[in-house]
Amino acid sequence: MFNSIVKSLIRDILQTFKDIDSDSNIRSVVLSGAGRMFSAGLDLKEGSSKEKISPDLDVARQSFARQSHLRWFQSSISSLEKCSKPVIVCIHNGAIGAGIDLSTAGDIRYGTKDSYYCVKEVDVGLAADIGTLQRLPKVIGNASLVRELCFTSRNMYADEALQCGLINKIFDTKEQMIEEALKIASEIATKSPVAVVSTKKLLNYSRDHSVDEGLEYTAVWNSAMLMTEDIPKSVEAFMKKKPAAYANL
Amino acid sequence: MFNSIVKSLIRDILQTFKDIDSDSNIRSVVLSGAGRMFSAGLDLKEGSSKEKISPDLDVARQSFARQSHLRWFQSSISSLEKCSKPVIVCIHNGAIGAGIDLSTAGDIRYGTKDSYYCVKEVDVGLAADIGTLQRLPKVIGNASLVRELCFTSRNMYADEALQCGLINKIFDTKEQMIEEALKIASEIATKSPVAVVSTKKLLNYSRDHSVDEGLEYTAVWNSAMLMTEDIPKSVEAFMKKKPAAYANL
Amino acid sequence: MFNSIVKSLIRDILQTFKDIDSDSNIRSVVLSGAGRMFSAGLDLKEGSSKEKISPDLDVARQSFARQSHLRWFQSSISSLEKCSKPVIVCIHNGAIGAGIDLSTAGDIRYGTKDSYYCVKEVDVGLAADIGTLQRLPKVIGNASLVRELCFTSRNMYADEALQCGLINKIFDTKEQMIEEALKIASEIATKSPVAVVSTKKLLNYSRDHSVDEGLEYTAVWNSAMLMTEDIPKSVEAFMKKKPAAYANL
Amino acid sequence: MFNSIVKSLIRDILQTFKDIDSDSNIRSVVLSGAGRMFSAGLDLKEGSSKEKISPDLDVARQSFARQSHLRWFQSSISSLEKCSKPVIVCIHNGAIGAGIDLSTAGDIRYGTKDSYYCVKEVDVGLAADIGTLQRLPKVIGNASLVRELCFTSRNMYADEALQCGLINKIFDTKEQMIEEALKIASEIATKSPVAVVSTKKLLNYSRDHSVDEGLEYTAVWNSAMLMTEDIPKSVEAFMKKKPAAYANL
Amino acid sequence: MFNSIVKSLIRDILQTFKDIDSDSNIRSVVLSGAGRMFSAGLDLKEGSSKEKISPDLDVARQSFARQSHLRWFQSSISSLEKCSKPVIVCIHNGAIGAGIDLSTAGDIRYGTKDSYYCVKEVDVGLAADIGTLQRLPKVIGNASLVRELCFTSRNMYADEALQCGLINKIFDTKEQMIEEALKIASEIATKSPVAVVSTKKLLNYSRDHSVDEGLEYTAVWNSAMLMTEDIPKSVEAFMKKKPAAYANL
Amino acid sequence: MFNSIVKSLIRDILQTFKDIDSDSNIRSVVLSGAGRMFSAGLDLKEGSSKEKISPDLDVARQSFARQSHLRWFQSSISSLEKCSKPVIVCIHNGAIGAGIDLSTAGDIRYGTKDSYYCVKEVDVGLAADIGTLQRLPKVIGNASLVRELCFTSRNMYADEALQCGLINKIFDTKEQMIEEALKIASEIATKSPVAVVSTKKLLNYSRDHSVDEGLEYTAVWNSAMLMTEDIPKSVEAFMKKKPAAYANL
Repeated sequence: MFNSIVKSLIRDILQTFKDIDSDSNIRSVVLSGAGRMFSAGLDLKEGSSKEKISPDLDVARQSFARQSHLRWFQSSISSLEKCSKPVIVCIHNGAIGAGIDLSTAGDIRYGTKDSYYCVKEVDVGLAADIGTLQRLPKVIGNASLVRELCFTSRNMYADEALQCGLINKIFDTKEQMIEEALKIASEIATKSPVAVVSTKKLLNYSRDHSVDEGLEYTAVWNSAMLMTEDIPKSVEAFMKKKPAAYANL
Repeated sequence: MFNSIVKSLIRDILQTFKDIDSDSNIRSVVLSGAGRMFSAGLDLKEGSSKEKISPDLDVARQSFARQSHLRWFQSSISSLEKCSKPVIVCIHNGAIGAGIDLSTAGDIRYGTKDSYYCVKEVDVGLAADIGTLQRLPKVIGNASLVRELCFTSRNMYADEALQCGLINKIFDTKEQMIEEALKIASEIATKSPVAVVSTKKLLNYSRDHSVDEGLEYTAVWNSAMLMTEDIPKSVEAFMKKKPAAYANL
Repeated sequence: MFNSIVKSLIRDILQTFKDIDSDSNIRSVVLSGAGRMFSAGLDLKEGSSKEKISPDLDVARQSFARQSHLRWFQSSISSLEKCSKPVIVCIHNGAIGAGIDLSTAGDIRYGTKDSYYCVKEVDVGLAADIGTLQRLPKVIGNASLVRELCFTSRNMYADEALQCGLINKIFDTKEQMIEEALKIASEIATKSPVAVVSTKKLLNYSRDHSVDEGLEYTAVWNSAMLMTEDIPKSVEAFMKKKPAAYANL
Repeated sequence: MFNSIVKSLIRDILQTFKDIDSDSNIRSVVLSGAGRMFSAGLDLKEGSSKEKISPDLDVARQSFARQSHLRWFQSSISSLEKCSKPVIVCIHNGAIGAGIDLSTAGDIRYGTKDSYYCVKEVDVGLAADIGTLQRLPKVIGNASLVRELCFTSRNMYADEALQCGLINKIFDTKEQMIEEALKIASEIATKSPVAVVSTKKLLNYSRDHSVDEGLEYTAVWNSAMLMTEDIPKSVEAFMKKKPAAYANL
Repeated sequence: MFNSIVKSLIRDILQTFKDIDSDSNIRSVVLSGAGRMFSAGLDLKEGSSKEKISPDLDVARQSFARQSHLRWFQSSISSLEKCSKPVIVCIHNGAIGAGIDLSTAGDIRYGTKDSYYCVKEVDVGLAADIGTLQRLPKVIGNASLVRELCFTSRNMYADEALQCGLINKIFDTKEQMIEEALKIASEIATKSPVAVVSTKKLLNYSRDHSVDEGLEYTAVWNSAMLMTEDIPKSVEAFMKKKPAAYANL
Repeated sequence: MFNSIVKSLIRDILQTFKDIDSDSNIRSVVLSGAGRMFSAGLDLKEGSSKEKISPDLDVARQSFARQSHLRWFQSSISSLEKCSKPVIVCIHNGAIGAGIDLSTAGDIRYGTKDSYYCVKEVDVGLAADIGTLQRLPKVIGNASLVRELCFTSRNMYADEALQCGLINKIFDTKEQMIEEALKIASEIATKSPVAVVSTKKLLNYSRDHSVDEGLEYTAVWNSAMLMTEDIPKSVEAFMKKKPAAYANL
């Protein structure tokens, strides 16, 4: 009901986004949470750090096991970002702890007016380790606010989330939010998949490289992609004012 | 009239900003568009991807030709950034597609109240490949909005552009905008060119490196520049409350 | 009175933050300026560039001396960032030149309603060289505003500083500001030092690396830290609704 | 017989080294080729570039398919490097094309006196794309020889391979080579797996980072690993001159 | 006669290698020196550091002028590396100072038995600044020898140059060397230009990036290049044992 | 007698090389070991990992303490590299474990004919963590040998060390080695300190950056250094065939 992040969910997210990535019929994704809130974060009872790792084990061996577990958990969250299709994340009510990690790995975020956001990890005795500390500063582009949120674990409410750019829009109800998200997702799905998938890939690459490195990679990338049939199709559609039908990737 | 970006314009931009870069009499630049709008983007008729590259050519050979063309096009847009002097870009009405690429390569952006901004490339079947995907996220520092703009090709209007920081100021008319831009440009031109040119160079470098790498480069850079006569001149001017006259670079 | 940054102050900042870093009794820091303003920047009379470096000296030897001086000055400013504990900077009245460099090296910034911010260096004939050009763009995540501020040396007032995210909050008086800063600092001090110190370290690291590099470093870091007693203590405190007492680092 | 690299082999290599990586009973690996030679490289009949990708397909869509195929092929070769245990590669007779890519992804290489090495790709009309161009220069540390080998596709024989450091030792027969490789592998298997696995991981990391970045990562890594029981066990074994028995990872 | 490197030669090298780069009829290059030696290095009389830069000029302005001159000089030397075709450098007698910088920017080096190599810059009071300190360590892959050569300015003779890998082969006479270089260059010219040019580009890129970054770039690069007609042509030629005729790029 | 590396020695190395770095009268350094061997490595009795860190302490707190200790230990070894003057390391008899870390941080290495080299750490249950895994591969430029040495902890003797380039020269006795080292060091000390110190700095920087980044840094560095009096002094000395006298830095 709280969408606590348990091991089975981590596994499901990873598998689902891998499947979406390779299913060429899917062109865009809307992710929302069922139940009372978007996600209450990691299930404290099941825990991330306990799984089958006996505290009696040699410390180095525990450390290897935890590394392995963390890389798996991170890969699940990152699967939204690695997925080649745009992911719109719809947040209602709380996005807490791992719920923030998850939402910042998406491309576009919407929130309801009662949504709130909490980088909870410090309150549980650890530093966030599955993406928030990496992605939140690059999503909202502001260091001072990020550090306040991360050090204090305070709630940030919808208005502030909109103003700092964590979410793009506020909706009165979850239903309206999902309706709009599906509309945008549908619109994206009508566009050239060569263009959309390339754009996501190049945005991800460019975030993590210098401008010149990003341009160089882009030149090589597009040296092939510019030969696509989607460009003449798009131009023709534009001239004829009729929608183009693009083949799947 | 629409300032479509055609091959001759790409060549002219490149040459002009190289000339400005090496002309020590010039200390700041204002770039605006004549005609109905700032720029309607790449001329679809002439096209970027078609130029003299026969579709019958071997795919690898087409790919080399396109790489070469793209690097040249990118170097034209990047010439605003590589130019050692501050560039103020004045946008009226539309900045579409390549028009956005061009404007984000400048240092400061102003817009009229009727200005709008559109990352149009996806609608033409390709990913933007001459700078927007690299620079726009670093200019406005917000990933969620950038991705929405790039995936949907929707128009962003002046108010939102101001709020997200793409432009620094909104003006009622193009004339007022250019007047203010020239005022700021003139003010910058009265300052020490050693200071101004160094600042632009170090901001560009630091954007693309870690803080520590940026500081190290700066220490080496300024170890020479701090020996300039402009510092005592500036201090003297400050003490005497009279403007200093700085030699050209 | 103006908290001009003189050599003895540079030395004191460096020493103080090194001491704070290694004193495990200290868990958070509030930095404010006594006197009329936060800091008027480098003392023009004493100067940074003059210190004992004779202008008759061989240019290369002067350059080595200046490099050495600059690295020392930079290390003093950077000591706020390298210090493992969160640093809240309280700015009243002016933060000018080196005062900006200093404040951007902190984690969270507060300002009074009469505070103003001025990247003054260009007006003195040099490019800022101790941190502003590196950190300000990453703090506020906006290139266009940063460049305007740096090229023109204009004052930015409290409202704009709040809106662009340089400061997190505006206060009517310096007293209220420090009261709130101490409150937040105290709150942070009640939290797990393993969690807080790790969070600062990982935020610093992740700012300067790609998302994937940041995640990899985090996985290794937390593979040890997740074995801490602070996690069960935190969970227990949460369950029992009683504050946890964490050992010093 | 020639150990041509066909799709089923690519799949098997990937799976096998993933299995070895996670099987804590395995501590070191010897890889050799059955049949007449180590590997004749990619099977030209099956091809890498043809697989199910119709030449009638849109060029951009072909390009996506090839990217996907290449990343998969690369991940198979890289699985030797990503595998946490040392891999000793034994080369008899020819190591051609993809056979070189494969062998450079191992840790230590041995060769028979009749072994020869050929970066064959240029002769087939393509640039090597699964590792040789990345790893060979870092394995032998010499650019001039690498470029000659890659541009001319000439055979390099055992003596030259030994002298340039591609292989560590020459053996008269394949049997002697494998005997020695198994001896070294067994010896490595008697050592602390914490030490061995950490060493491989840190060597891989440090190859791809600056010295200072490598040291920083190592400090974090070993801050956990130095708490291992293997250290006192090793010291005790050293004192008592008796072999230590280390638990699996 | 000594092939001193004067301004006109710097200009000619830059122009020539740009021309070679864009002339698709040229597929490989042999560079040798006429006269008594390969190159005696920078002409001390004309000098690099003096050109039109008055010592009375403000130090910062001199520094800008020198930066500009150095970048131009570097771009000339680097034009061998940026040139897309393999460059074989033939060194007879002395390669001194800038002569080393020049030769290390080539792909393959040959030397006569009377050739010697001298990183002369320290003896003239400066650090080498046009490529030797960057490329020599990566060419020969040995730090200890490089540092000895650079700190002492001692001559290294042909035998040692062969052993450390600076040159690939020693020849009795300049004529024999050039004959062999032309033979190899001709052989390279018979191969697929798609394959050869891609190989050089990918080797350059991979030298300066991590293995994983190199692989990623390669996957994108070859996703287009693998569609070339040169692959089936090569395979057919191999099957038929007849040379293939490849179209120019 | 064995020059075991104990805490007081770590402290002394760090302090000594900092002092050398800032003492402008010193222009080059020879480092050798008194007693029976160069260094037997870390003192197993005192240990690196035990110092004052109680095993009863919380694991995270132990980890912080070890990180802090390791960074200090690393900074001591790295002080040879950070020291601006060339360091010639003379190795007689054994260089074991931390002794290798230490010697690879120098610039040039000499060895006696009875010298041997052993990356001992794996035998003590840990991965080398103070520099060998970072620097050894870059010193000798060969991955296959490095990995064999690190995984097996076998001794490498003088001949192999010479051949792989770990040492530049073999001497019959320690006395002859030191005599030659002092001769080279004295020769280096007669050269321009601007040239020598710049060369070391630029070699260090370039090792850890791409060729283009190294060139850019060099251009900025030398834009000041080329104004030195040492260049005309050197040229004059060369013309007059008389040694130049250079001022200290």
